[in-house]
Amino acid sequence: MMRKINVGIIGFGTIGSGVYKILQENRDIISKRLGAIIEVVKIADLDITTDRGVKVDSGTLTSDVQEIIKNSEVNIVVELIGGYEPAKSLMLQAIHENKHVVTANKALLAKHGNEIFSMVEDQQVSLGFEAAIGGAIPIIRAIRESFVANQINSIEGIVNGTANYILSKMSDEHCSFDLALKEAQDKGFAEADPTFDIEGIDSGHKIAILSQLAYGTPINFDNITIQGISGISLDDIEFAQEFGYRIKLLAISKFDGASIDIRVHPAMIPQNNPMANVNGVLNAIRVCDDLMEENILIGHGAGSLPTGSAVVADIIEIARDIISGSKLRVPPQSFQNTAIQTIPILNIESINSEYFLRFSVLDNSGVLSRISGILGKHSIGILSVIQKGRCDQGRGVPLIMMTHLVNEKNIQLALKEIDELEVVCEKSNFIRVEK
Amino acid sequence: MMRKINVGIIGFGTIGSGVYKILQENRDIISKRLGAIIEVVKIADLDITTDRGVKVDSGTLTSDVQEIIKNSEVNIVVELIGGYEPAKSLMLQAIHENKHVVTANKALLAKHGNEIFSMVEDQQVSLGFEAAIGGAIPIIRAIRESFVANQINSIEGIVNGTANYILSKMSDEHCSFDLALKEAQDKGFAEADPTFDIEGIDSGHKIAILSQLAYGTPINFDNITIQGISGISLDDIEFAQEFGYRIKLLAISKFDGASIDIRVHPAMIPQNNPMANVNGVLNAIRVCDDLMEENILIGHGAGSLPTGSAVVADIIEIARDIISGSKLRVPPQSFQNTAIQTIPILNIESINSEYFLRFSVLDNSGVLSRISGILGKHSIGILSVIQKGRCDQGRGVPLIMMTHLVNEKNIQLALKEIDELEVVCEKSNFIRVEK
Repeated sequence: MMRKINVGIIGFGTIGSGVYKILQENRDIISKRLGAIIEVVKIADLDITTDRGVKVDSGTLTSDVQEIIKNSEVNIVVELIGGYEPAKSLMLQAIHENKHVVTANKALLAKHGNEIFSMVEDQQVSLGFEAAIGGAIPIIRAIRESFVANQINSIEGIVNGTANYILSKMSDEHCSFDLALKEAQDKGFAEADPTFDIEGIDSGHKIAILSQLAYGTPINFDNITIQGISGISLDDIEFAQEFGYRIKLLAISKFDGASIDIRVHPAMIPQNNPMANVNGVLNAIRVCDDLMEENILIGHGAGSLPTGSAVVADIIEIARDIISGSKLRVPPQSFQNTAIQTIPILNIESINSEYFLRFSVLDNSGVLSRISGILGKHSIGILSVIQKGRCDQGRGVPLIMMTHLVNEKNIQLALKEIDELEVVCEKSNFIRVEK
Repeated sequence: MMRKINVGIIGFGTIGSGVYKILQENRDIISKRLGAIIEVVKIADLDITTDRGVKVDSGTLTSDVQEIIKNSEVNIVVELIGGYEPAKSLMLQAIHENKHVVTANKALLAKHGNEIFSMVEDQQVSLGFEAAIGGAIPIIRAIRESFVANQINSIEGIVNGTANYILSKMSDEHCSFDLALKEAQDKGFAEADPTFDIEGIDSGHKIAILSQLAYGTPINFDNITIQGISGISLDDIEFAQEFGYRIKLLAISKFDGASIDIRVHPAMIPQNNPMANVNGVLNAIRVCDDLMEENILIGHGAGSLPTGSAVVADIIEIARDIISGSKLRVPPQSFQNTAIQTIPILNIESINSEYFLRFSVLDNSGVLSRISGILGKHSIGILSVIQKGRCDQGRGVPLIMMTHLVNEKNIQLALKEIDELEVVCEKSNFIRVEK
């Protein structure tokens, strides 16, 4: 008889039903690799009547989550309800009951990770959260177990499929942001309220968690500079293409040995960079360090089965620990608890970057000279300029510049000054360039 | 006092010295993550006088490999001499002595893996070989631990940096194969005898190992169809670009549930595919399965530190098992020994593919009709044709065709017949298209 490891699933939505489906339909391949059976003994959800497209024994479903948390048969609790509460209280209670926990909840880990990690260490249970970032992309395992001798210098990710779908559609079909968003919603890639995705908050949650694992520091989510894609116009996309770039919503984290530069914003990346060709709902995460230069992982960052596949991999990892009798084999935060030290986060104004600047100006003589004068005064070197021909009366014409590597603070001061010129028709826009 | 795990390194060449360097220089970050120290107690090499660019205590170096294998202090033996013998005998002896083993030796595992895996199972020791494929790319861990609930359908890889460097250089700088090879040799990316790399044998070793892990079957290396890149001309590269493709040396393995289609050959892939933009010495491996659609991992596939980084990750993994007291937590072949079953390998003549065909023909009327007549007779549908203008007297002009999805056997029969036409000036060439 094969050994059984028992699982309880809290939350029977898209991912929960995917996890159940995988554990049922791929039971044979799982046991061929694991040498044991993963059994779902209980599934808790407030709604246990909706058809989820999978057959579940009536005795398995419950609306009482305590039937999982207090169930002495359950080895692993899988939290898939998302959001802050009641997810947090339930997770802490499960850990307190000595259950191992698997979750896909990035918002919760980004905001309350420290409290959760600390309780996990106290109770000596395992916490799996591969599914929280990049869906099926094995980035957590790569950082915790593969890049483990490496001094990680930077992580850059396209970690939100909704935003990437919108930007890809704008780039490839030359449509407006609004149209691209509407199509993403129609296809189920964007939620009715897409704020977390398009305003970069979800990407911020993910880069917070990744930075914590990569550098061994707690991250205060509120210190992350976050800028979404709702300000990106089709003009920006098309000028970027003219310069040989594509615009992507990037989550960026760079560690120079003293402080961390961590931010989420739209960025221009060269067209021949593999990440520039990661389109649609695909995600990509690039890790750089002192040993391997770079490693890029690309895959589906969302969806019932891709995300479910990562949840099940975590369940199997914990099952292997249970079977082989090992405890806390890999520290959940990647670093030993005693080695975790707070590293300061750099203020965005201190960073250096190249910039794409878009001005809307009156087509008067002397405009270029006044703008470049202000840029020069703030030590901003110009790499190239495109000025487009005359428009219909009164409206501005676009003036586009690419800068050398300059300081962010100087850009902000210069743009403020430029926006006060009477020859400037609209608020100027800038996009950081990442190479 | 932190616990120590003792390592002996056999082979102090490029990778061996990289491993030693990483264990010395990154000792602090390793112990912060592992909670223990990895100590190199002995390094064996026939040549212990050459300067490897790292400082080693004189007592650590030995020319007697038995000082490692029979050393009761050594927990993990790292085999980095490469090739078949004496690597194989030493590795088997080390396993017999109950040492855990880490290796980067893909040739040995591809040819004699079954014997080695079987002894590893008998002795209940661990075998790490992440460094054998894709350098720092964590593909072995991904297959064994992340895609573990997944029915893998296909693996496609750019797994040889030398070949990729040559093809990238031909594509980007429009130079000949010979010139690109010479530069690769000058830069140290290709060996004096580059046969294994450019003729696809090294890629064949790697896809054999990956297939074994992905599908749970022994692979007979001799049944793999292998074709290198030495027959690729600049013409092929340039016509590929005209059609919107790049040529890459691909290692391909596809499983349809009944048999495995496994082969290494140059292939045309669409320019907007992320793998088409993996250039120079970079490697990339794409895994497709029933749950996550696709996952692509990109990184440096060779070199002292990237490969060393994978070796050290394996050492740390085994150290974690030793410390947490777990044994054979993950089966070395990814499947439980009892679940491994032989799956037949498809003959290359049975596969279906799209093809790029290049003919060199006399610029006579009727040539196109005769060639397309033969193709039609063999049920080969033509998708598009390029016929280039007249050349200088007597020499052939190129005639290029892209086919629909057709059977390989039919292509081979048709080309044989076409090559017998008196209007055909050279042996015709074909390149398979992968999308």
